[in-house]
Amino acid sequence: MEIAANTAPVITIGSAKEFADKEVTIRGWLYGKRSSGKIHFLLVRDGTGIIQAVVVKAEVTPEVFELSDKLTQESSIIVKGKLRLDGRAPGGVEMTVTDLQLVSLAQDYPIGRKEHGPDFLMNNRHLWLRSSRQHAIMKIRSTVIKSVRDFLDSNGFILIDAPILTPAACEGTTTLFETDYFGDKAYLTQSGQLYMEAAAMAFGRVYCFGPTFRAEKSKTRRHLTEFWMVEPEMAYCDLEENMAIQERFVAYIVRQVLEKNADELKILERDIELLLKVEPPFIRLSYDEAVDIIKKGGVEIEWGDDFGSPQETYLMEQFDKPVFVYNFPAAVKAFYMKRHPERPELAVCSDLLAPEGYGEIIGGGQRSDDLEYLLEQIEVHKLPKDAYEWYLDLRRYGSVPHGGFGLGIERTVAWICKLDHVRETIPFARMLTRIYP
Amino acid sequence: MEIAANTAPVITIGSAKEFADKEVTIRGWLYGKRSSGKIHFLLVRDGTGIIQAVVVKAEVTPEVFELSDKLTQESSIIVKGKLRLDGRAPGGVEMTVTDLQLVSLAQDYPIGRKEHGPDFLMNNRHLWLRSSRQHAIMKIRSTVIKSVRDFLDSNGFILIDAPILTPAACEGTTTLFETDYFGDKAYLTQSGQLYMEAAAMAFGRVYCFGPTFRAEKSKTRRHLTEFWMVEPEMAYCDLEENMAIQERFVAYIVRQVLEKNADELKILERDIELLLKVEPPFIRLSYDEAVDIIKKGGVEIEWGDDFGSPQETYLMEQFDKPVFVYNFPAAVKAFYMKRHPERPELAVCSDLLAPEGYGEIIGGGQRSDDLEYLLEQIEVHKLPKDAYEWYLDLRRYGSVPHGGFGLGIERTVAWICKLDHVRETIPFARMLTRIYP
Repeated sequence: MEIAANTAPVITIGSAKEFADKEVTIRGWLYGKRSSGKIHFLLVRDGTGIIQAVVVKAEVTPEVFELSDKLTQESSIIVKGKLRLDGRAPGGVEMTVTDLQLVSLAQDYPIGRKEHGPDFLMNNRHLWLRSSRQHAIMKIRSTVIKSVRDFLDSNGFILIDAPILTPAACEGTTTLFETDYFGDKAYLTQSGQLYMEAAAMAFGRVYCFGPTFRAEKSKTRRHLTEFWMVEPEMAYCDLEENMAIQERFVAYIVRQVLEKNADELKILERDIELLLKVEPPFIRLSYDEAVDIIKKGGVEIEWGDDFGSPQETYLMEQFDKPVFVYNFPAAVKAFYMKRHPERPELAVCSDLLAPEGYGEIIGGGQRSDDLEYLLEQIEVHKLPKDAYEWYLDLRRYGSVPHGGFGLGIERTVAWICKLDHVRETIPFARMLTRIYP
Repeated sequence: MEIAANTAPVITIGSAKEFADKEVTIRGWLYGKRSSGKIHFLLVRDGTGIIQAVVVKAEVTPEVFELSDKLTQESSIIVKGKLRLDGRAPGGVEMTVTDLQLVSLAQDYPIGRKEHGPDFLMNNRHLWLRSSRQHAIMKIRSTVIKSVRDFLDSNGFILIDAPILTPAACEGTTTLFETDYFGDKAYLTQSGQLYMEAAAMAFGRVYCFGPTFRAEKSKTRRHLTEFWMVEPEMAYCDLEENMAIQERFVAYIVRQVLEKNADELKILERDIELLLKVEPPFIRLSYDEAVDIIKKGGVEIEWGDDFGSPQETYLMEQFDKPVFVYNFPAAVKAFYMKRHPERPELAVCSDLLAPEGYGEIIGGGQRSDDLEYLLEQIEVHKLPKDAYEWYLDLRRYGSVPHGGFGLGIERTVAWICKLDHVRETIPFARMLTRIYP
């Protein structure tokens, strides 16, 4: 890295505007090139932005001009030159190159300007991440994740990591990845919630945030086998307070993306009008009301059914802001859900559905704080009682009303970016037929 | 929750000082109790702190006094009363109770004031988390994790999550957890580094931060089978810059804990003098120099050996601030490490060892950017070349000098808290003989 050592400071493209009229060094890769005989326009990327570096034949050595002529897409290069503000340039600043160094010449970069099928792109995910669209999605993903943490950290929640390797299943064992654990069986977690209940009794407000796993044979645009979920849990909390926090939380996340990722939303051609509407209060529908709407729309559903993708999609095409559907039939929800005091066929719970047809991004609710009820449910669902002894302890020693929710990061990012498929929302997607790279 | 609905606002103990001379409601659990005939001193915890709530017989109804008499440890209660500042009280504020409501009476809480063995406590981890010492450790853990993210986010790093389920092993397959992946084999990640190398070529500076796994049959005070690791990776970075960032990073983390967790460090009786010394520059020793020191100390080692626990412990008893040991023999490091240009038997790498005998908290180094060398190493180590094709692509298309490091959260927390065993540094530890609760 010879050039880097000389007097022109090494800067990132993201900070280039601060160095207008200065000579600087930028270390990056060739993203694209245009030539017109005596001038080469190099588009250089370094991960923080893209800058146009102009090589004028008359102003550089013959070696530099020749080198810039033979540069191929994704070759790694170090460019030195003077920056100047230019409103028409991407990023508002352009470089006039004075020196250029080749770090490594790329031969036949496989991703070109032509169209590629999704399988080809996913096989080359390690390279596809360099494209501006994927880059934009990953930057928004990182804003979403940071906003999740910032909101919770500043609202009295403590991060308590849930274990990934678990001895028992949260909601049945049919969709679990299993592994040998020194002679015993262990499963990859589907949810940290039960552990968060224990933690909420110790810390009041807690959250875990990690990867979760579903060995589902679903091949839809909404399913990943490995995805990230944040799961807050609150002691002394009822469903109303739970939903109120969820809507503040989701509104905060969307607002942060609007503030920090205007450029990325533009690259994705996202219509932000609908995102601007994501402010509390969200719409609240009881399950009963939601079923009526879906029925009237001619989509198949009977009272008592869980919502599938067609039901959620139809419902969320009717609204332009997020919708809580609350009080589902207990039969379609997990065994630990609290029953409605007046209508015991209902669970005290809510799903939060995203607009524009995206559907569920949050599932949440109250957990039963009653020992007898849970013992009964464990029997009804034929769960291994021994494995749940610690969970039952939470009702033996200082049981309190409590609840929480889980927000899926990938579905949230898909909605905010308005993507067709969740596979683009995570750096290295894991799906039914995909575990490479 | 009848009391909660009335006029005294519900507050957390952590914010009690702001409500001096006001009547408030606190929802929590009974942590301890002292009585003197006509007065009960209730220690109430709510996860944000502990407050003394005083019940004076003459000032409450007979029912409230009787109830406070029969309260047992860890019963959940709601107390209402007037707060007043009191320098002698824990947290600096005390409550004079006017009303008290029992939410749930705890019977025979298993963790008492007597000594318990570690197995008993780990079996009751879901309850043990409520004790003030464990509470303090978890709060410090959450500060460490937040500091990790804040430092990286504000130093130009982008979070790019690495996958947990991987088709190939980063460093051999003997210590991997294996799972069936729809008919194929998949392994739980030991490190996200290879993926971070791909991401660094797209984003410049990146990090992943998630759980990693080792199916090691080690039963030591330093080993967990599941632990959290942050792995930053930087394009266009050499070992010097890499170490410089590491020392700023570790110093920042320690400084944040000193600032935010003074109370918790006090509960742990941590001598903070040594933590105050954790400021750059750290000590730098070549592997050659470190071996000499260890040899002179009479601890068994030959040039070429990797450091084990006895070597690290001895070395780090000699220093009162962190030490980089750099340029280890390539033979004891991973296949992808870059070789030293003048001494090819060495890898361009460093470990960061924590003082007070704690040893390695960071492993890092330069990755080879040379395609031919890596092809050779894959053959030498008999690795499946197909599985590494994507990794090799990073050297085919725009290879650049790059490096990074991995910091283990649990070992860092163990050192900062000065704990004997890493099992207390993570909410739900997974070890050779432990996967419950």
